[in-house]
Amino acid sequence: MSATDPVALTQDLIRCPSVTPEEGGALTLLASHLSAAGFTCIRVDRGGVCNLFARWGEKGHDRSFGFNGHTDVVPVGDPASWSHDPFSGIETDGQIWGRGATDMKSGVAAFAAAAIDFVTDTPPDGALILAVTGDEEGPSIDGTRALLDWMEAEGERMSACLVGEPTCPETFGEMIKIGRRGSLTAHLTVRGTQGHSAYPHRALNPLPAMARLIDRLSSRRLDEGTDHFDPSTLAPVTIDTGNPATNVIPAEARASVNIRFNDLHTGASLVDWVETVAAEIDVEFGTATEVTARISGESFLTPPGPLSDLVTKAVEAETGVTPALSTTGGTSDARFVKDHCPVVEFGLVGQTMHQVDERVATEDIRRLKAVYARILRDFFA
Amino acid sequence: MSATDPVALTQDLIRCPSVTPEEGGALTLLASHLSAAGFTCIRVDRGGVCNLFARWGEKGHDRSFGFNGHTDVVPVGDPASWSHDPFSGIETDGQIWGRGATDMKSGVAAFAAAAIDFVTDTPPDGALILAVTGDEEGPSIDGTRALLDWMEAEGERMSACLVGEPTCPETFGEMIKIGRRGSLTAHLTVRGTQGHSAYPHRALNPLPAMARLIDRLSSRRLDEGTDHFDPSTLAPVTIDTGNPATNVIPAEARASVNIRFNDLHTGASLVDWVETVAAEIDVEFGTATEVTARISGESFLTPPGPLSDLVTKAVEAETGVTPALSTTGGTSDARFVKDHCPVVEFGLVGQTMHQVDERVATEDIRRLKAVYARILRDFFA
Ligand SMILES: [Zn+2]
Ligand SMILES: [Zn+2]
Repeated sequence: MSATDPVALTQDLIRCPSVTPEEGGALTLLASHLSAAGFTCIRVDRGGVCNLFARWGEKGHDRSFGFNGHTDVVPVGDPASWSHDPFSGIETDGQIWGRGATDMKSGVAAFAAAAIDFVTDTPPDGALILAVTGDEEGPSIDGTRALLDWMEAEGERMSACLVGEPTCPETFGEMIKIGRRGSLTAHLTVRGTQGHSAYPHRALNPLPAMARLIDRLSSRRLDEGTDHFDPSTLAPVTIDTGNPATNVIPAEARASVNIRFNDLHTGASLVDWVETVAAEIDVEFGTATEVTARISGESFLTPPGPLSDLVTKAVEAETGVTPALSTTGGTSDARFVKDHCPVVEFGLVGQTMHQVDERVATEDIRRLKAVYARILRDFFA
Repeated sequence: MSATDPVALTQDLIRCPSVTPEEGGALTLLASHLSAAGFTCIRVDRGGVCNLFARWGEKGHDRSFGFNGHTDVVPVGDPASWSHDPFSGIETDGQIWGRGATDMKSGVAAFAAAAIDFVTDTPPDGALILAVTGDEEGPSIDGTRALLDWMEAEGERMSACLVGEPTCPETFGEMIKIGRRGSLTAHLTVRGTQGHSAYPHRALNPLPAMARLIDRLSSRRLDEGTDHFDPSTLAPVTIDTGNPATNVIPAEARASVNIRFNDLHTGASLVDWVETVAAEIDVEFGTATEVTARISGESFLTPPGPLSDLVTKAVEAETGVTPALSTTGGTSDARFVKDHCPVVEFGLVGQTMHQVDERVATEDIRRLKAVYARILRDFFA
């Protein structure tokens, strides 16, 4: 029985300096391991972003299991503030150190190792796909999206997909993500008429209007949550004017609000609501408010069912922990995958992700590989 | 009968480049004219600011009339955008052009010319004082204030004082200022706890608190005005956060509000009120708000009486216009003079003050000198 070491592969991947959008050798390394095990590897690069598609088995097979992940990492900041070189992948005290140790070179190493061993030891009746991007931490426009577009065009398909992002808040095994809230940012510009603060009646101050607009948006309880989702939330993240003169009433003010929303809303319905409130404010104050919105992702849910059961059973068997089915947290590339097939996310504890001294216990990498391996055995059983 | 030309003196003063805090030769020029007419001239310089005290007649006389004004000017901006060199004092089409043409080298020239002619032609039983500062447009800490401190210490006094600032909105003669509203600026810092916008319950967002604070302060009608004052007004002038990251809830936000207040309030009572509202907000939101206030001046009033009657009569006689007694507008150095003697303000139309192509009709300078001359005759009659 073969036994690809996911810890050594994690270390090798950390040593590839693949800060978004640099490929850094990471996808090439991965492709060489996968090719050796019989995978067809195709680089699907788009817009300066490198992506890797790998398939074992028959194209378009109706029993195709997919893994999705990324090898790009966020910048390391000041390397001097790290205890170890962030691209060393050094092991000390049972931990692997470096940028990407948890997010998510370990996850990629674990599913690649599980996949290689599985097809080598017990070649399944079906297909196994790895869709790995080099741009999850960046704009994410030419990353997983490009892979999925290409797969669609080529007739490549997955029956189900697991995204290997870190999902556990504190203890390995405790959380599977079965969906995500949507996210949008609305940029608000309230325009009035500049003037002297001694003569406010000759000006139209945009700031009282802006204050009430933000108060009204913030005060609205969007919902009480749903079966699988927390309540939607709105957070104003900035209000800016940039007026240094205390005797001048400014002509305009800008603000941004970020909304994380559940399946009771769509991005469009919320943008409508923000525009409606802005229009009310304009009537009250005589201002002119412009709303520009960017919807980063709609909310989505893979309702509890065969895929979440499969992953739950594997996690319980390998860790003794029953994972919660959650929709909390920020966005991930699962928001793109969900348009193609059922998708869930399961991975490591993410506590040190994006931080100085990012690191992972070697034991957790091995346990993660074991969970992924069991998922493959059960899926193709 | 002597006839000092206030137009030529205005031109000469404009040619002195006395942008605050530069003396630019303006006070020196003025002192030479006044000395020649028998005035005792003393430079009262403090903190890098030049000021001129000039007295004709007996020190501490109980019939002492004072004029107050300034020779410093605001910057010219881009000289290329002016129709004429802003320090040329050139005359075309009956207008004198240049920085300070209305604010207020013409006013200083008019009262200096009136004073020189008056003491030369009809030496009064009393004293005539000119207190002219080189820092009215700047911090105003070592300007008229320094002159008044010095006068107090030296036993110099004025029974009444006229400030020669531009006071007329559109037509010469239409407005005398008998007081001013007070002015204060409160700087507000609302502090919360930074966090990720996907997890607002783990952060304490200062922006909803800031928005409601500004809304509450802006919505309060401070008063309905009084016999001589317009209603007090509050204008938020800036709200700033400076957070570029839409997925980050900021730790703090800052804002400034400017309050122009009448004689129903004091600076301290309003600062108390702002602090009380901020404390309410902190209870509602759990935030910590810091209020730092700067009171630029308290409101003051020289109630209609002998001094305003004197000036009104002179304006009516020379212009045929009955001036309104007003307390509108920004602050002026009258806010310092009012602690020493009754003070009113009367001067030219201020439409082009602080602007490109600042200019004044020569006819208006002559009429202003005539009004000042009549005031002196009537005062000492
Ligand atoms: Zn990630
Ligand atoms: Zn002035």
